[in-house]
Amino acid sequence: MSEFDVLCIGNAIVDIIARAEDDFLHENDIIKGAMNLIDAERAELLYDRMGPAVEASGGSAGNTAAGVASFGARAAYFGKVCEDHLGGIYRHDIRAQGVAFDTRPLNGFPPTARSMIFVTPDGERSMNTYLGACVELGPEDIEEDKVAGSKVTFFEGYLWDPPRAKDAIRKASEIAHANGREMSMTLSDPFCVDRYRDEFLDLMRSGTVDIVFANEDEAKSLYQTADFETAIAAMREDCKLAIVTRSEKGSVAMRGNETASVSAHEINELVDSTGAGDLYAAGFLFGYTAGRSLEDCAHLGSIAASIVIQQIGPRPQVSLRQAAIDAGRLKG
Amino acid sequence: MSEFDVLCIGNAIVDIIARAEDDFLHENDIIKGAMNLIDAERAELLYDRMGPAVEASGGSAGNTAAGVASFGARAAYFGKVCEDHLGGIYRHDIRAQGVAFDTRPLNGFPPTARSMIFVTPDGERSMNTYLGACVELGPEDIEEDKVAGSKVTFFEGYLWDPPRAKDAIRKASEIAHANGREMSMTLSDPFCVDRYRDEFLDLMRSGTVDIVFANEDEAKSLYQTADFETAIAAMREDCKLAIVTRSEKGSVAMRGNETASVSAHEINELVDSTGAGDLYAAGFLFGYTAGRSLEDCAHLGSIAASIVIQQIGPRPQVSLRQAAIDAGRLKG
Repeated sequence: MSEFDVLCIGNAIVDIIARAEDDFLHENDIIKGAMNLIDAERAELLYDRMGPAVEASGGSAGNTAAGVASFGARAAYFGKVCEDHLGGIYRHDIRAQGVAFDTRPLNGFPPTARSMIFVTPDGERSMNTYLGACVELGPEDIEEDKVAGSKVTFFEGYLWDPPRAKDAIRKASEIAHANGREMSMTLSDPFCVDRYRDEFLDLMRSGTVDIVFANEDEAKSLYQTADFETAIAAMREDCKLAIVTRSEKGSVAMRGNETASVSAHEINELVDSTGAGDLYAAGFLFGYTAGRSLEDCAHLGSIAASIVIQQIGPRPQVSLRQAAIDAGRLKG
Repeated sequence: MSEFDVLCIGNAIVDIIARAEDDFLHENDIIKGAMNLIDAERAELLYDRMGPAVEASGGSAGNTAAGVASFGARAAYFGKVCEDHLGGIYRHDIRAQGVAFDTRPLNGFPPTARSMIFVTPDGERSMNTYLGACVELGPEDIEEDKVAGSKVTFFEGYLWDPPRAKDAIRKASEIAHANGREMSMTLSDPFCVDRYRDEFLDLMRSGTVDIVFANEDEAKSLYQTADFETAIAAMREDCKLAIVTRSEKGSVAMRGNETASVSAHEINELVDSTGAGDLYAAGFLFGYTAGRSLEDCAHLGSIAASIVIQQIGPRPQVSLRQAAIDAGRLKG
């Protein structure tokens, strides 16, 4: 009997979210749609220039953990915050969602990570992340019993940015596989793929990771191709299970010769795309760890993504379990 | 030539907003729809029990100032924060909206005020406010030049809760009237009216305040009557200009024998009623200081309120100026 359905590991980040025009991104050298890494000085500069904002707990894998819990499944999270005000908010929010979170916080410096997210009128988000306390996440933060007791351990590719998190992931993978569990990752961002392409391919080909999530741009970046079909054929080859999301064009899950293509769940209005991929992964992994078909998993992912992009902020403000029931994809 | 259209004075509060069921309010002795004052200990207890939240700058008069600025008018604000993380957020958000804000912050203790707001499925909000640094606002925080240079100085009835803010308001009223300006207030909350009924009536009858905003419940509470017509007849008598809002039933503005009744602006869905009255006042005072008719002012108030109740959080995430143009109530 496993203790958790999904354990998520990632950079623990509080989001600071404001609307901005495209001109603002251009004037401030912010790459649109990407995660831009910034230092403390630039964080202060951008905050001075930022419009009125709202704060919400975020972090890619943290959002996924919250999503899994919102479906009613058992989720845990590893991530490093500092014992400061934002760290308190982060811990509160993820625990209040029902996620087990016990990573030892830093005492003092650097402060809890924050990401200034500018949402343009088209709903696209451009992130500017100061990693702060996240740089201290290391192998000592891997709680062995939780990894051994989780059906799937999921992590974000962004973890290759801080210095020691990759060692933590390798340790987690060993524990998971020694206990007959599976490892999953998201490629996170096409620029992140560009920074760590060879290492990510090695994670896949060596079997360190079993289940890989990517969006279209990340898949193309991974194989340095402009052709979508080429990219997904290569991913099918390199992973036990590969899932590629394509925004409004839906998603495709591939396992050996098996393929499930699902259209995107309909939305009324795209408000803020923050968290779309994170919540897709949450829905998919919720279904996967419940033993559902690839097609069902993809539908559950699409439902979760559709909810989060129709609100401001990266974690669903309504019950995903109820949303899945309403959509006829889950029994009430 | 005046420097500001509207100067707002109030409790500077950061909102911590989460959804909750009605049962939660009952189990935790929270009066629904009201502002419940709490101490630091109860703030900690309620936060422990609160679901995942988002943080946003709030405070009734602060929201009004942000709304006035969002219409493109010149706004200023007086309110007390502490030099802590929430204080930094508060200062950032109100300045980033274009509001002049220079009140000297506290150095150390008590911390910046926060209000835990539980939003029930019907969109009603129930507030739990720890006043923190707000208890230190006093006459020394009244910047004379800003009061003298503002067409209208607006404050919240909630300022009667901290000990010395009422002295600050009396000082502001003297300066405003000595400079031919007007004073305005909102009655804030029916329970607040109950706490300070005689003082509020005296502010009106003595001419300390010229323009008074109330919702239906507050007007009834002020005159201890269950009859709406009785309440508004008395308000018409006691104020130079009285405005009573009635949620979906619209609003009525009364000045001597003049009356303007306006229906509520249509909405698609009531998401979170936080800030409805604050933003109504912003729209009305924006119109009033621009020399518009009472009917126009009431329409502008209704537009602003309709925007803020269709989002989570108390300050509009879109331009109110643009919303008023789109509604045909302002020239582009």
